[in-house]
Amino acid sequence: MKVCKFGGSSLANADQIKKVKRIIESDERRKVIVPSAPGKRFDGDIKITDLLYSFQDAVRNNGDHEGIFEQIAGRYIEIRDELGLKTEIEKYLEKIKKDVYSGACEDYTVSRGEYLNGLLIAEYLGYEFIDAADVVFFDAAGAYEPDKTRIIMRERLKTAERAVIPGFYGSKPDGTIKTFSRGGSDISGAIAARAARAEVYENWTDVPGFLMADPKIVKNPKIIKKITYKELRELSYMGANVMHEDAIFPVFQAKIPINIRNTNDPESPGTMIVPHFGDDDGDGTITGIAGKKGFIVIAIEKSNMNAELGFGRRVMSALEKNNIRFEHMPSGIDTLGVVLSNVEIEGKQSQLIDDIYAFCQPDSLEIFTGLALIATVGRGMRKRIGVAAKLFGALAESGVNIRMIDQGSSEMNIITGVDEKDFETAIRAVYNAFCGGENAK
Amino acid sequence: MKVCKFGGSSLANADQIKKVKRIIESDERRKVIVPSAPGKRFDGDIKITDLLYSFQDAVRNNGDHEGIFEQIAGRYIEIRDELGLKTEIEKYLEKIKKDVYSGACEDYTVSRGEYLNGLLIAEYLGYEFIDAADVVFFDAAGAYEPDKTRIIMRERLKTAERAVIPGFYGSKPDGTIKTFSRGGSDISGAIAARAARAEVYENWTDVPGFLMADPKIVKNPKIIKKITYKELRELSYMGANVMHEDAIFPVFQAKIPINIRNTNDPESPGTMIVPHFGDDDGDGTITGIAGKKGFIVIAIEKSNMNAELGFGRRVMSALEKNNIRFEHMPSGIDTLGVVLSNVEIEGKQSQLIDDIYAFCQPDSLEIFTGLALIATVGRGMRKRIGVAAKLFGALAESGVNIRMIDQGSSEMNIITGVDEKDFETAIRAVYNAFCGGENAK
Repeated sequence: MKVCKFGGSSLANADQIKKVKRIIESDERRKVIVPSAPGKRFDGDIKITDLLYSFQDAVRNNGDHEGIFEQIAGRYIEIRDELGLKTEIEKYLEKIKKDVYSGACEDYTVSRGEYLNGLLIAEYLGYEFIDAADVVFFDAAGAYEPDKTRIIMRERLKTAERAVIPGFYGSKPDGTIKTFSRGGSDISGAIAARAARAEVYENWTDVPGFLMADPKIVKNPKIIKKITYKELRELSYMGANVMHEDAIFPVFQAKIPINIRNTNDPESPGTMIVPHFGDDDGDGTITGIAGKKGFIVIAIEKSNMNAELGFGRRVMSALEKNNIRFEHMPSGIDTLGVVLSNVEIEGKQSQLIDDIYAFCQPDSLEIFTGLALIATVGRGMRKRIGVAAKLFGALAESGVNIRMIDQGSSEMNIITGVDEKDFETAIRAVYNAFCGGENAK
Repeated sequence: MKVCKFGGSSLANADQIKKVKRIIESDERRKVIVPSAPGKRFDGDIKITDLLYSFQDAVRNNGDHEGIFEQIAGRYIEIRDELGLKTEIEKYLEKIKKDVYSGACEDYTVSRGEYLNGLLIAEYLGYEFIDAADVVFFDAAGAYEPDKTRIIMRERLKTAERAVIPGFYGSKPDGTIKTFSRGGSDISGAIAARAARAEVYENWTDVPGFLMADPKIVKNPKIIKKITYKELRELSYMGANVMHEDAIFPVFQAKIPINIRNTNDPESPGTMIVPHFGDDDGDGTITGIAGKKGFIVIAIEKSNMNAELGFGRRVMSALEKNNIRFEHMPSGIDTLGVVLSNVEIEGKQSQLIDDIYAFCQPDSLEIFTGLALIATVGRGMRKRIGVAAKLFGALAESGVNIRMIDQGSSEMNIITGVDEKDFETAIRAVYNAFCGGENAK
């Protein structure tokens, strides 16, 4: 069976929900549905969740809460009517309004977008409605409780042939509502997929899948057809706009693949996120490119550094003392570089330099700013000859000077450091070299 | 002025010494000469120094010491006679024999090769003879004393217009003789160059200079025309057969260039070792290639490693606890590799692995053996685009798979890890790519 999460724009109005129904009915394995709240119907429209935040705010500050609530109510009534449903949504809306007026917590208020949408979609699909408050749990301090959730949700799903569980929220031991971070319906879907032991977790959105490069830099980048969790993590760490870590972890643990699909193009296979390498993976191409600006290199020089036991450890201790995480540590013979993000070192630079001098007595120390890092990621690189040649050939042809290379800890990621001014040129060059891409310039 | 050290084969017989005289007289700045003992005159011949070791050994073990001493005496007498000199070398030889019979230390015995050669060459050149025992000093424990040596030698040289100082030895406070390590005449020459504030330290040998690659791997590699101390150190660390560290340090400190010259081809400029980069250096070519087999990679994997303060430090602490120096530490997102030489880890592997598990709690840990490292060194790489492209393009064309890349701490060294079986192929490919080299296959 499949667990399907649908995003807000996939459920923004009755027409979208009709598309969703056709998608669900086209594959009878789509047994558990996790809906978001209705999203934007058009540019400039307001998402229900944002309206609910505004409503809560207006109640608190004595603003036009009635007006805002009417907008919210209007959208649900319209969806209900256009789909020809019987759910007495007005009754639910009235209760929510009362609860907020009597001081319900913000998490309760904003989670009602998913709750109400779940009620309507359950009726429309003929699926059982399961309130997330009864199957997703947080502790009294607000921390998510994975074990309790998995056990109880799994038992509950055994009693339901087909079910709708609203995304984004659960409940604390006292019964009050607690939400995940915003966009948390992705997390709810992953949790449900794990509890249901789904064969795949389908995440239906308004995008065609994950892109091989940032579309702000590369024009019309190709869609990633298949990506492993590890590759996704490498791209995501390096700035690619992909799913939230917390939305991947539950299915990653259970080795359930995630399929990113487009509600507006349901025939397209989208992006499949798989737990492991397969047999068809050593094709020499890359999976994606991502990168970030904003790094510096501290270059430490000391004669016979390599013969000095503990030298590297002392550099690391200086970083740790200053609460600084490092990115990379390229090393030559008498030289050691430490690559740090500007964010990590901000306000700590002079103390760190003092400490490196004190701990390591270097011969010299230089700081180079304005470094951008680019990760070229691909399980297809494993044991394929010529990947580095293609990569650095493309950068050379584009006139990009290489300031750092780090490859070797992982067989599927070459990290290249370039000047920030060359960042976009470099990304485009690498994309073109591996993805053909006459679109890419 | 120039300090000139001449190696054993440059001084093996009267003919060679005549060449040396012509060289010295062709440049009047060659004012301080540091000779080795006479070396091999032909394949299968025995160096004087080796004969002296055998003599000492034979005296101790009651072997044919008379026969060996006659060989030694014969060579000096022949040189003296062929050069038409007056030095009563027999008198000096007799004293040495007596000293050894009365229990002189081995350092005294073996240093007499340089001493006697110095006496003859000084007369032949018309230079003053300065016994190294009077100007090169060790402490009572046998450690070289650079400051005392520099001050006293400098004063002594002020009184000599032109001088010969035998290489290889000096004296301890009680007047007994102490030698440097074998090949130590290179060190003596460097010390003399520093004391004399020479403009250049000429090191005359029987080779045309330093080679760009190992001639056992690359056929007829080109000579390195100019190399900086740092490049030399990088190549030498990575296995290139160059001068002993101790022979470079004194002149490195004083920023005196070293010129490696060939006695048998004095017109050739040889290799110039210079303190610093010059203006003519950014030509995109490399200075040399060196490499070594015998490394392993410990690949450590842990989710969210980058977010974990002190993770790298804990890996380093595990190494330090086991008294292990590391070579490189390539890092990805959730992965960290530690490159170690087999020699460093021998007998310590299982304890190290246990400690990494205990200190760092990795998700997984794998060990890959059979790694060779190749250093492609060149100050000409600095700010030149396309060096990495050429390097990795050449490796790809030769079918070499790249297991590790480390560049960035130094602007003049790209370190590449390959399988040991690909080592020679890789060296040849890189040499050919940068040095043209139809000879190289």
